[in-house]
Amino acid sequence: GSGEFFPGISAIQYKPDAPATDTLCYKHYNAKEVVHGRTMEEWLRFSVVYWHTFRGTGLDPFGSATLKRPWEDGTDSMEMAKKRLRVAFEFFTKLGVKYWTFHDRDIAPEGATIEESNKNLDEISDLALQLQKETGVKLLWATSNLFSHPRYMNGAGTNPDLHAYAYAGAQVKKCLEIAKKLGAENFVFWGGREGYQSLLNTDVHAELSHMANFFKMALAYKKKIGFTGQFLIEPKAKEPTKHQYDYDAMTVIAFLKTFGLDKDFKINVEPNHTTLAGHPYEHCIVMASEFGFLGSIDANTGSPDCGWDTDQFPMDVKNATMVMRTVIKQGGIQPGGLNFDCKVRRESTDPEDMFIAHIGAMDTLARGLRNAAKIAEEGHLDKLVQERYKTFKVGLGAKVEKGAATFEELEEYVKKNGNPEMISGKQEHCEAMFNHYV
Amino acid sequence: GSGEFFPGISAIQYKPDAPATDTLCYKHYNAKEVVHGRTMEEWLRFSVVYWHTFRGTGLDPFGSATLKRPWEDGTDSMEMAKKRLRVAFEFFTKLGVKYWTFHDRDIAPEGATIEESNKNLDEISDLALQLQKETGVKLLWATSNLFSHPRYMNGAGTNPDLHAYAYAGAQVKKCLEIAKKLGAENFVFWGGREGYQSLLNTDVHAELSHMANFFKMALAYKKKIGFTGQFLIEPKAKEPTKHQYDYDAMTVIAFLKTFGLDKDFKINVEPNHTTLAGHPYEHCIVMASEFGFLGSIDANTGSPDCGWDTDQFPMDVKNATMVMRTVIKQGGIQPGGLNFDCKVRRESTDPEDMFIAHIGAMDTLARGLRNAAKIAEEGHLDKLVQERYKTFKVGLGAKVEKGAATFEELEEYVKKNGNPEMISGKQEHCEAMFNHYV
Amino acid sequence: GSGEFFPGISAIQYKPDAPATDTLCYKHYNAKEVVHGRTMEEWLRFSVVYWHTFRGTGLDPFGSATLKRPWEDGTDSMEMAKKRLRVAFEFFTKLGVKYWTFHDRDIAPEGATIEESNKNLDEISDLALQLQKETGVKLLWATSNLFSHPRYMNGAGTNPDLHAYAYAGAQVKKCLEIAKKLGAENFVFWGGREGYQSLLNTDVHAELSHMANFFKMALAYKKKIGFTGQFLIEPKAKEPTKHQYDYDAMTVIAFLKTFGLDKDFKINVEPNHTTLAGHPYEHCIVMASEFGFLGSIDANTGSPDCGWDTDQFPMDVKNATMVMRTVIKQGGIQPGGLNFDCKVRRESTDPEDMFIAHIGAMDTLARGLRNAAKIAEEGHLDKLVQERYKTFKVGLGAKVEKGAATFEELEEYVKKNGNPEMISGKQEHCEAMFNHYV
Amino acid sequence: GSGEFFPGISAIQYKPDAPATDTLCYKHYNAKEVVHGRTMEEWLRFSVVYWHTFRGTGLDPFGSATLKRPWEDGTDSMEMAKKRLRVAFEFFTKLGVKYWTFHDRDIAPEGATIEESNKNLDEISDLALQLQKETGVKLLWATSNLFSHPRYMNGAGTNPDLHAYAYAGAQVKKCLEIAKKLGAENFVFWGGREGYQSLLNTDVHAELSHMANFFKMALAYKKKIGFTGQFLIEPKAKEPTKHQYDYDAMTVIAFLKTFGLDKDFKINVEPNHTTLAGHPYEHCIVMASEFGFLGSIDANTGSPDCGWDTDQFPMDVKNATMVMRTVIKQGGIQPGGLNFDCKVRRESTDPEDMFIAHIGAMDTLARGLRNAAKIAEEGHLDKLVQERYKTFKVGLGAKVEKGAATFEELEEYVKKNGNPEMISGKQEHCEAMFNHYV
Repeated sequence: GSGEFFPGISAIQYKPDAPATDTLCYKHYNAKEVVHGRTMEEWLRFSVVYWHTFRGTGLDPFGSATLKRPWEDGTDSMEMAKKRLRVAFEFFTKLGVKYWTFHDRDIAPEGATIEESNKNLDEISDLALQLQKETGVKLLWATSNLFSHPRYMNGAGTNPDLHAYAYAGAQVKKCLEIAKKLGAENFVFWGGREGYQSLLNTDVHAELSHMANFFKMALAYKKKIGFTGQFLIEPKAKEPTKHQYDYDAMTVIAFLKTFGLDKDFKINVEPNHTTLAGHPYEHCIVMASEFGFLGSIDANTGSPDCGWDTDQFPMDVKNATMVMRTVIKQGGIQPGGLNFDCKVRRESTDPEDMFIAHIGAMDTLARGLRNAAKIAEEGHLDKLVQERYKTFKVGLGAKVEKGAATFEELEEYVKKNGNPEMISGKQEHCEAMFNHYV
Repeated sequence: GSGEFFPGISAIQYKPDAPATDTLCYKHYNAKEVVHGRTMEEWLRFSVVYWHTFRGTGLDPFGSATLKRPWEDGTDSMEMAKKRLRVAFEFFTKLGVKYWTFHDRDIAPEGATIEESNKNLDEISDLALQLQKETGVKLLWATSNLFSHPRYMNGAGTNPDLHAYAYAGAQVKKCLEIAKKLGAENFVFWGGREGYQSLLNTDVHAELSHMANFFKMALAYKKKIGFTGQFLIEPKAKEPTKHQYDYDAMTVIAFLKTFGLDKDFKINVEPNHTTLAGHPYEHCIVMASEFGFLGSIDANTGSPDCGWDTDQFPMDVKNATMVMRTVIKQGGIQPGGLNFDCKVRRESTDPEDMFIAHIGAMDTLARGLRNAAKIAEEGHLDKLVQERYKTFKVGLGAKVEKGAATFEELEEYVKKNGNPEMISGKQEHCEAMFNHYV
Repeated sequence: GSGEFFPGISAIQYKPDAPATDTLCYKHYNAKEVVHGRTMEEWLRFSVVYWHTFRGTGLDPFGSATLKRPWEDGTDSMEMAKKRLRVAFEFFTKLGVKYWTFHDRDIAPEGATIEESNKNLDEISDLALQLQKETGVKLLWATSNLFSHPRYMNGAGTNPDLHAYAYAGAQVKKCLEIAKKLGAENFVFWGGREGYQSLLNTDVHAELSHMANFFKMALAYKKKIGFTGQFLIEPKAKEPTKHQYDYDAMTVIAFLKTFGLDKDFKINVEPNHTTLAGHPYEHCIVMASEFGFLGSIDANTGSPDCGWDTDQFPMDVKNATMVMRTVIKQGGIQPGGLNFDCKVRRESTDPEDMFIAHIGAMDTLARGLRNAAKIAEEGHLDKLVQERYKTFKVGLGAKVEKGAATFEELEEYVKKNGNPEMISGKQEHCEAMFNHYV
Repeated sequence: GSGEFFPGISAIQYKPDAPATDTLCYKHYNAKEVVHGRTMEEWLRFSVVYWHTFRGTGLDPFGSATLKRPWEDGTDSMEMAKKRLRVAFEFFTKLGVKYWTFHDRDIAPEGATIEESNKNLDEISDLALQLQKETGVKLLWATSNLFSHPRYMNGAGTNPDLHAYAYAGAQVKKCLEIAKKLGAENFVFWGGREGYQSLLNTDVHAELSHMANFFKMALAYKKKIGFTGQFLIEPKAKEPTKHQYDYDAMTVIAFLKTFGLDKDFKINVEPNHTTLAGHPYEHCIVMASEFGFLGSIDANTGSPDCGWDTDQFPMDVKNATMVMRTVIKQGGIQPGGLNFDCKVRRESTDPEDMFIAHIGAMDTLARGLRNAAKIAEEGHLDKLVQERYKTFKVGLGAKVEKGAATFEELEEYVKKNGNPEMISGKQEHCEAMFNHYV
């Protein structure tokens, strides 16, 4: 392959008949192939994350860095930041994805002062803009890292200290400017330290009010500068804090509605966060979509037996099919996407593992799309569901749906019709039908 | 002791100096003693549940009934229902609680038709009313059992079949009438089968809309008959369904706000349900209170290592102190109460175990109240919290709290003041202070 | 279809090309087809359980029976027991499985005395023997139900009361005789109430010693009567007790070795129990196999987001492939089998759901077998693993494997060879390869 | 206070009447006070860990170091290592603990070669020995860090690569020498990377055999050099690996017995690891003790709602009472101890928080000891347990305990005595009695 940083790897090809051992090609993802009325790349809108993929080192709470990349010089210099950006765009291009995402502090080093940090961002984003133009890769979303720096240990938008809170505001302000400059289609808020470690030292109501006002300032500034990307909140149940305020999709909706923010925010759902909240894998994707809040998806997975965020590449076709069913049902995920908020295992130390992992995940989601499309087109599952609810489409049922019925009418119905019949839920039948497709 | 059904047990006395082996007296709960400005019984508003305590049999998914009460004749007759009610009021009276709670189908047998069920309820509630008058015991809340009968296997207010849905409506209609008749101070909805077993056969949005309309009909009927009790929803994360729609307090708030029901409902929090949702014990109590939705508490506990509802009597003083801190902070739990939605273990087969369990729990909550009162009165923890947030009370901080600040001002503040200082969260200090009181 | 009890259903056929909506045929399981050197039925050794499938009613902790079978007359009479047995054998035969399993109290009603219970068992097992001969269906294993009757509420082999303990012994004695009579290939012990609800009232060491002696008596009696079936212990982490002594496979191995029982017992692994212990789905199957203790498998699944035993039919092909890989690796599961310790959802009220559920699961495991066979035959994954460990096959590594090396030699090796190289674990590569097959 | 590093803090005093706000004194722990026949310091044998307390930085997977200690110069030099050791001994001395523990790589920097690492250890351990002599503080245990360095990413004693395995052996060899030199009373093995991330690339049996042989080499070397400390294995369920081989106490016992190591190893139980395995807090302490394997305790706690190792200071008196009951029951924990494998929260940035946290935990365990002693001395709970099992002390019960009974005798007993009586387990009574003491 051409390119300076991944010399042994060419642009990844679609080879549906490649053998098991060949994991450096797509066997299912065929970007331009039309499936269910759109190309695969239009449905799937994959993006690569900068933080795990280009700043991840394999560090974990019990061990030091294992992922020693040949292009890294061991510094956090501006020069290194620029070189690394070129590595990333070579990676995006060879992989064949159309989008990337980043945290402000991933792409440019934090300076000694906010002025210096901002200057670094200006300079790096110039290069990013140039590379975007050269490659056609676009920015799915940007976000501010408001959780890694020690100043945010007690929170950013919920910090008890105004000074830290102000710093977070200043940082987001700049990041919104950069997002606009790079044409970000969305802007994500993940409240990594917005939660509590102990209720004994915490004023929950004050913290949530401050956070709401923080978001209102962000909206005002967005409007002022004419940034048009969709604002997204990313829920997480716990970790790093004992309890995160944005526990899950429904909690975020309650917060947004309480503080009058529900018109201006949607939700970026990460399944690994969903399962940490005790839900099934696809739950928050489905609920956010049903409530009209599904904006984007961080396409990853955890291990259901592990109680922390493992950020693994999604490799389960069944889960992928459930996700893509929801995406198809709501008419696509745009302007959001399927963002790989995933990291190679810290033991996967070969640079080629970065490719293999993304390819494996893209193939998994491509299979999910193909399956979901077939399910939608054959219509058997949808029809079964419609049949189940058909009594709400006529007579008293229709009146209930319109909100026009009364308990007196319901009682009358029962007095006239007696006890209802037992109607099987047919769950195993549905599971077997679903297995027909996956 | 006097009374026909618990011949060996007299009215439970307050004996603060009784030895460890005497578990049939109060060592901490002293109903008329004034603590923090009210009597203990005013703060604690204990109620005994009819279902576990008088209808529980020790049946579990792996075994049959173990709790064979001497007063039971093995039938579900009206005669037995009346006798059982007298047993219960003897129990309430000897225990010294002021409130009870029931499900409609606990107190009166389900009939072959709704008319017969309603007639049974009329007759039994006449006796209940009489016993309430005789003893002074009042009804904290009533609720409809919309989950035990097979007709509700696919849900009640979310059942895909109008017929079952209508039955639920007819049942709640009657139960509201009985609640009014008995002077219930609240009315609870627990959606035991309102959730999904599989997303494959479920239309989530239809089900939630139907449930919202169900609640609207309940509100209309409540108004029509002039029932003034507070409506409460009781969240639960899972079990019996794989996923309950009323997952936790925040999910309920999201639902209520989405469907315009938030003015008319509060929340009845059960800690065992809270922990099943992955939260700390007191979490939903605190969150519901902070959002203005805490209406009542089902005072029980689970085992954090067990993933199902064990409905144990609360015996942990630390947890009780956290709960009572919130109750004190919001000025009391009235018109709600501390309802013992708890069951004696199925191995606790002696009738006296019913007393011992309630007494142990009441003493635990009484210790919690005493501790929380002392914490409030000494004020050290509250002061520490106020200190933490003091920068939001002046200058730019106060402007943030008012919602009048901008990102530009925050940035300016940072440019002027540089990096914030690191301020210890003092968690272990708070924990040690808290331990001083418990 | 012929037969009196399932009139609309014929013997289930293999129709690999049937559409999604046809869930009453096999699309993957083809009993006589040879896969990897044996017929599918030889590898898969499916059995149907009597308890869930013929005695399950849909009762759960929150609701009463929903599964009202047309053949049931509402009694627990001997006549009904005989009729029900004929229903079961019609089911086994139409489904096409070769094995069944039961608890003693499933097949014959408990009598007022042990003598009467034993007499019932004698009479029913005569019919069972006749039906086995007529149909060719065999008994994979029998077991004693030592957990449902109230007498066992505090345990059976661990009951603090000798009287209950003795009852359990008498019951197992009889069940061993019946197992011998019916040619059971195994005999299972599941310690449903062998655990603790509270450590406060429990003498753990006494209970475990009593249980060990219980097993020794069972071995002595087995030998005495000449029963040759394999003894199996089935681990479970928790539920119904707070903590079961047979938590997981490794815990059982520790117990067996501590009490000198490890030569005479193997393990029956149920994945739903494995996940309740916090392990990955296939973990205990793999560990038991690696330690030489895997005797049989209860082929079911739970929901990873639910903390209790849901006993669902296994429908996940990926999990099934992992299971069958282990089965193939150890040369088959005989004399054990794949026993469907599963229940249709309580909402799946149609008798045909019983067929659909088993067929769906059998097809899932058949796909697992086909995948695992292909993985074994292509050998890529096995080869990758062998390569990883190759340094232990020569030189100092081989000496380590033999247990002949010393720390001094290891140190010398390091002093000579310096720091080891970083070798990628290739996890994502393995996952992508695995996905090639599933 | 005197001393260079904690200038504001004097030796911590016992002040039982200090107010809530004073958290820099003992209110319960009184080292020389005799409780239940020994001094508190003899029962409690507290030790401070070097890793969290002197090498912890507050780094977590989502953020960088927050704990910037005034004595640190930002280097990992030998000079800094020596200074830090003096800080630690000032801390131990002011706190008033008699023991410390360390990992080899905590106290001395890793060198470029093993020779250099060993040289560093020699030099630092000279200073440690001197400080031990000067202060009287002793070494409870030492351990090798076999998980932080990248070379161990795929395991140490289970690494598929002999080279990494050999490195681990060389490292433990040296650490045993240092442990001997410093008079360590125990030596701990925690298998931080001994487990699997994926079963697809793992040969479980090979890894466990290699680990067993690793332990055998350690035993041989221990004997050779005449080190007499007790070997301990510390179980952990998961994290950092998806699944650790030493899942819990029973798993370790199974491993030890399988490989013939059970005579030479005991277990160091950490409750935070116990709860990660799905057990109650005190479970592994109780089980290890009942099986004769409880060697030492890592006295910490997690948050039951968080699925990862939070290593918090133990602040729950109820848990502490359960732990100390077991310690008293087995006659003390010596030569093991109560080791504070805990870290201050990363937000607890004041050096005084280090003291406050330890003091809070020591007071908690001191309360636990006082409670447990009173429970033992009053004897009510023990007597209740003895009563429960009394039928096994006479007649047929005694024969069962001796292993001399048969199923025939049990059957005869039942035929003669009929059905057993129902005997209440009295759990709530026990809980209420327990609450009398805590």
